Amino acid sequence: MATVEWDEGAGGVRLIDQTRLPDEESHVLCRTAGEVAAAIRDMVVRGAPAIGAAAAYGVALSARAGEVAEGAALIRAARPTARDLFWAVEQVERADDPLAEAHRIARESVAACQAIGRHGAALLPRGARVVTICNTGALATVDYGTALGIIRAAHEQDGEPFVYAMETRPRAQGARLTTWELRKLGIPHRLIADGAAGLLLQRGMVDAAISGADRVCANGDVVNKVGTYPLALLCREHGVPFYVAAPESTIDQATPDGASVVIEERGAGEVTTFAPAGTDAWNPAFDVTPAGLVSALITENGVRRDG
Amino acid sequence: MATVEWDEGAGGVRLIDQTRLPDEESHVLCRTAGEVAAAIRDMVVRGAPAIGAAAAYGVALSARAGEVAEGAALIRAARPTARDLFWAVEQVERADDPLAEAHRIARESVAACQAIGRHGAALLPRGARVVTICNTGALATVDYGTALGIIRAAHEQDGEPFVYAMETRPRAQGARLTTWELRKLGIPHRLIADGAAGLLLQRGMVDAAISGADRVCANGDVVNKVGTYPLALLCREHGVPFYVAAPESTIDQATPDGASVVIEERGAGEVTTFAPAGTDAWNPAFDVTPAGLVSALITENGVRRDG
Repeated sequence: MATVEWDEGAGGVRLIDQTRLPDEESHVLCRTAGEVAAAIRDMVVRGAPAIGAAAAYGVALSARAGEVAEGAALIRAARPTARDLFWAVEQVERADDPLAEAHRIARESVAACQAIGRHGAALLPRGARVVTICNTGALATVDYGTALGIIRAAHEQDGEPFVYAMETRPRAQGARLTTWELRKLGIPHRLIADGAAGLLLQRGMVDAAISGADRVCANGDVVNKVGTYPLALLCREHGVPFYVAAPESTIDQATPDGASVVIEERGAGEVTTFAPAGTDAWNPAFDVTPAGLVSALITENGVRRDG
Repeated sequence: MATVEWDEGAGGVRLIDQTRLPDEESHVLCRTAGEVAAAIRDMVVRGAPAIGAAAAYGVALSARAGEVAEGAALIRAARPTARDLFWAVEQVERADDPLAEAHRIARESVAACQAIGRHGAALLPRGARVVTICNTGALATVDYGTALGIIRAAHEQDGEPFVYAMETRPRAQGARLTTWELRKLGIPHRLIADGAAGLLLQRGMVDAAISGADRVCANGDVVNKVGTYPLALLCREHGVPFYVAAPESTIDQATPDGASVVIEERGAGEVTTFAPAGTDAWNPAFDVTPAGLVSALITENGVRRDG
C-alpha cells in the first residue's frame, strides 16, 4: 500500500495521494517540510497515525536542511486536531538522529496497528457485523489500520466479519477509501449513507461499532471524524458496544477533555457538493464522543474498559 | 413555485422536475396515471404531501380514461411508505367528481401547510436557530411546506429564524432543494453534513429541530427520511425540542407503530456517488423515530404533545 514511505534515492517521503482515490492510484513526493505540511493540510495524507508518520518525516527533512524549528512550526500549523501530529513532531524534533527517529515512528506505528488488530479481534464474535466510520485502514496509518485493522485481523483469523461502511460526508472517506481497502482485502461489506446508521442499529443489524480516534483526552473523551458521536449515541441506545481503536500516541494526557480540543473547521466547498452555487456551510471536521459512550479503548497495549 | 399544478389545456398535471434542481428549473407533464406513477417512483415529485396531490391528479387522469382501478393500482405501487399517497388515491377513487376531488386535495393541502406554519411558528423563540432534515418546503408539498412552512411563517412574522439544513444523503434533498428554497425566501441558513448534527447539538447551536413525516403511526411513531431518528436522539440527549410537522392526512390510524411500516429500500447507485465502481450499498429511504422522542406533532389542527 505504501501510504507513507521514505524514498532515500528521491530524497523525500512518498505519499499515496488520497484525494485522488479510488479513481486514481498516484503518489506525491515531498522533499521539504513545507511540502509535507501542504500534503497534510490538503489531505493528500490523512488519518491520525498516517499524519503522524508523514509529520515525522517532514521534520526529518527540515533537520537535513538545518531548519528543524522552522519545519516543525510549518507542520504543527498544518492541521489542529490530530494528536499524533504534535506527538510525532516533538519526538523527531528532540531526537539525535531525526531520520532514524522518523523511521522508528513509522515502524512502530505498523506494529501498534497489528497489536490493536489482535486485541480488538478477540472482542468480536464469529461472523460479527461491524459498522465503522471514516477510513481507519492502511491508508489512515502507515499500514494495517486501527479500527479497520481489527476487522482485518478478524478476517485473517477466519472470523468472517461483515462491514457496514458509513459514507462519511463531506469528504466521503468511507465511500472512497474504506470500500476500496475492504475490496482489496476481500472482506464483504456494504456502504451506507451516514443517516442510515440509525435504522441499522434500530433493526439490530450490527454486533459492534468500531471507530478510530484523532485524539483521546485524559478523561477518555474521544475526538474523531464528525459523525462519530451520533453513532456512539445510537450504540448506547441499542446496547451495541462502541469500540475505539487507536495507538497510545493518540492519547493526550495534556488535554483534559473534549471541550478543550480545537475542532478544525474546513472550507464550505467540501459540503456544498450538491448545493446551489454560493451556499454557505458549516464544516467541522471532528466531534467529541464522551468517555461514557465508549465501551472500550483498544490500543497496542490491550483493551481498557475504564471509559 | 408550482410543485404540482393541473394544466387543463395540456390535459395533465405539471410537476417541477426535482431531480434536476437546483441546476435546472424544468417541468414534466403527466397525462396518464402511469406517467404520474413513474414521476413518483423516479422522484421527479417527492415529499409526502406533494406525492399525495400528484397521486390524486393521477387517479383523476385515469378516471377520465375510464380506468380508475387500473390507475389507482399503478400509483399505489409507485412507492410504499408515504401515507399521503394511499390516502389521496382512496379519496379520489371514491369521489363522484375525481378531478374536483383532486383539486380539493391540492387546495386543502396548501391551507393545511399554512395552518401548520402558524401553529408551529408560535413554538419558536425569536431568533430561533433551527435544524431541519430533507426538504419539507414548497417543493415537498403543493405549496408553502410543513417543517419549512413553520420556518417560513416565523420569517414572515419577523421572528428572524436561522436554519441549519442537513444535507440529507443519499439524495441530498437538504443541499439541493432546501437551500434553494431558503435562498428564494431570503431566510439565512447554512448547510451541514448529516454527521455534523452531533457537534451542532453538542455545542448548543440550535433551539429546535423540525422535521416532516412520511407517515405518523397510531402510537405516534414517525416514519420519515432516513437520518431523522439519529437527529431526534441527539435532541433528547441535549434537551432540544424535536418537532414533527405534517398534515392530518399523514397520520395513519391503521398502522399501529413504526415496526409495522414497510421501509422502502432504493437502489445502491444513490449511495455509491463517491465509491469505487461495483460497490454494494444498503439504501433504506426512511427510518422510525419512536413517539417518545417527539416533543410535539404539529398539524393543521394544532400542536399535540402526547408523544
